[in-house]
Amino acid sequence: MKRIAILGSTGSIGQSALAVVDAHADRLQVVGLAAGENAELLAAQIARYKPRVAAMASGAALDRLKQNGASSVAVAATGRDGLVAVASHPEVDLVLCASSGTDGLEAVLSAIDHGKTIALANKEILVMAGGIVMEAARRRGVAILPVDSEHNAIHQCLHARPAVELKRIILTASGGPFRGRSASELADVSPEDALKHPTWRMGRKITIDSATLMNKGLEVIEAHWLFGVRADQIDVVIHPQSVVHSMIELVDGSIIAQLGVTDMRLPIQYAFSYPERWPSTLPPINLTRAGELTFDAPDTDAFPCLALAYRALEAERSLPVVLNAANEVAVARFLEGRLGFTAIATVIARTMDAHAPSAVATLAEVRSVNAWAREYALEAARGVESRV
Amino acid sequence: MKRIAILGSTGSIGQSALAVVDAHADRLQVVGLAAGENAELLAAQIARYKPRVAAMASGAALDRLKQNGASSVAVAATGRDGLVAVASHPEVDLVLCASSGTDGLEAVLSAIDHGKTIALANKEILVMAGGIVMEAARRRGVAILPVDSEHNAIHQCLHARPAVELKRIILTASGGPFRGRSASELADVSPEDALKHPTWRMGRKITIDSATLMNKGLEVIEAHWLFGVRADQIDVVIHPQSVVHSMIELVDGSIIAQLGVTDMRLPIQYAFSYPERWPSTLPPINLTRAGELTFDAPDTDAFPCLALAYRALEAERSLPVVLNAANEVAVARFLEGRLGFTAIATVIARTMDAHAPSAVATLAEVRSVNAWAREYALEAARGVESRV
Repeated sequence: MKRIAILGSTGSIGQSALAVVDAHADRLQVVGLAAGENAELLAAQIARYKPRVAAMASGAALDRLKQNGASSVAVAATGRDGLVAVASHPEVDLVLCASSGTDGLEAVLSAIDHGKTIALANKEILVMAGGIVMEAARRRGVAILPVDSEHNAIHQCLHARPAVELKRIILTASGGPFRGRSASELADVSPEDALKHPTWRMGRKITIDSATLMNKGLEVIEAHWLFGVRADQIDVVIHPQSVVHSMIELVDGSIIAQLGVTDMRLPIQYAFSYPERWPSTLPPINLTRAGELTFDAPDTDAFPCLALAYRALEAERSLPVVLNAANEVAVARFLEGRLGFTAIATVIARTMDAHAPSAVATLAEVRSVNAWAREYALEAARGVESRV
Repeated sequence: MKRIAILGSTGSIGQSALAVVDAHADRLQVVGLAAGENAELLAAQIARYKPRVAAMASGAALDRLKQNGASSVAVAATGRDGLVAVASHPEVDLVLCASSGTDGLEAVLSAIDHGKTIALANKEILVMAGGIVMEAARRRGVAILPVDSEHNAIHQCLHARPAVELKRIILTASGGPFRGRSASELADVSPEDALKHPTWRMGRKITIDSATLMNKGLEVIEAHWLFGVRADQIDVVIHPQSVVHSMIELVDGSIIAQLGVTDMRLPIQYAFSYPERWPSTLPPINLTRAGELTFDAPDTDAFPCLALAYRALEAERSLPVVLNAANEVAVARFLEGRLGFTAIATVIARTMDAHAPSAVATLAEVRSVNAWAREYALEAARGVESRV
């Protein structure tokens, strides 16, 4: 029996994770659940899975949780303390971090310190603090298992292969809803347009990141940390069918790819079952009905966010933190209808340009750069907005 | 330094193998070479690679070899004895069996007895005597490394995965030059038409087998022996681009695929380098220039040889021997212009229908069934030809 904690249990990844638990109730036990503000759903999850510990983002949410009859469970705390308490609970074997943004960073580090296996569905954590997290995991001998479908595919492809045999990682990207459009055709797109992802059903922030290709840019940085590859060893190809989830190229030119249905339950189950692999109740992909598979180079003129991410990764140090913070601010403004779609990249680029890269060896340094970048990006966004 | 023997060194696989040796002269040494009748080329290979031992199929070929100045090398013998002598030479670490048909069967068994690693490019050997060969290898602890690009791909995909995680093998097939034609459109095709393979450059026999899909049928049987999977765990998909060389489906529905250029030097190098993986001098595949990849179900009405192979595998025992022997006879008659293309399957089916399956636990039993099937198939072919 593997005992798991889920940070972000009411989100789309969290709900998929609980579906995996349902399918493997003989192998998985829910010990901890943490959610943001959705007290009604968390109360229902607590009633069903009876975790030892639960947490919510705020005191108000916690009150609503108790009103919904979830008083019997040990509600540890709120905010970051709550996430830390759930992630480091002594009965937890594996922590699935699917909380949004960088909320779960301390919780992940605490879970690593306590020797828990980490299933990471949140790419911001590695983009922000990849060096800190991976070094902590290495020192403690803890596995970081990627749940992001692309990195999960890479993990499956690498399976027991020595690092010396890896030449290149090839991340596939659906291209998002605006694939094929030019930069000028993108200026007027609305949040509603951008939220229509062609193949994956995901949360709002990540769906916008898919539309700008920043999601792929963040994944490039994530891949660097997870697999120890340089920026020039990571390629991105546009694969609109989302059948090939990613690939590796080995030193002899051979490519190993992972293919599957576009359902997050598969990578989540993989992370839960690893190093075993369990049967799935999902129908397998039927390749003879998948139609044709295509692979194209990304258009970095129309989608400059991808190039910005490569630039941040090549500079390393604090620039990925700036990229991520500025992106979070810009996407939020776009979703509020205040910022144009193409201005997202403008805001990020201006914030990066204004930043003098520094070391980010501690969480305090990460937080400091993050705070500066968010503030600068907000100002930059307002500057762009005022001229709309 | 890995010391290798090549059975069939003047054929297309043999020549590719020597190109791999050229590319990795610091890691590979040629100890033995065996060829059929091409004395001129073998003499040149002997002059260049200076093996300890060489063999040819016949005394006449041997005389020509000596006339070509290759007298200094220890020419062991001719025929099957020659193959055995080369394969079991004490200095040999790995034997690449790329001789045609079942000529190399005794040599492979002798090499296994002597503890040599086997790189198998010849599928007839497993189709004929898979049970005997695999049991001998298991008992002696010898690895059988597949060189056939499909099985090599499967071997790469399986890499260190436990057998219990494997659900299904998916062999890709180019579909050959007649893909998309109906049975009636195939009646009049000539040997010249059938020898035009769209993606792979190979020998004559295997190219015809690709046109009838019997090559894929033999590969289904080969996969059964190599990977320990049942007939109902082996699927074939038509993939005309020959970019995906084959795939495995795991118990959770995840598919792992191997992709690469269509150049036999890659699977040969993989077998030579295994369990390591060496850099290749070949250009890697560029997926963004590969065009679209498609996967379709095979048309077993137009290409009944594939269904015949499944039937033979399901019956097991001696029926695969009959299938292979009848196919060899029928393809030879087709290449001589005596038998129609669609009559190849007719001859095989009639020979299979006439056979009462028996055990084939010894080489003598295999030879006996093989001899019967060849004789019967020849008669069956003549019966069909006389009515042309």
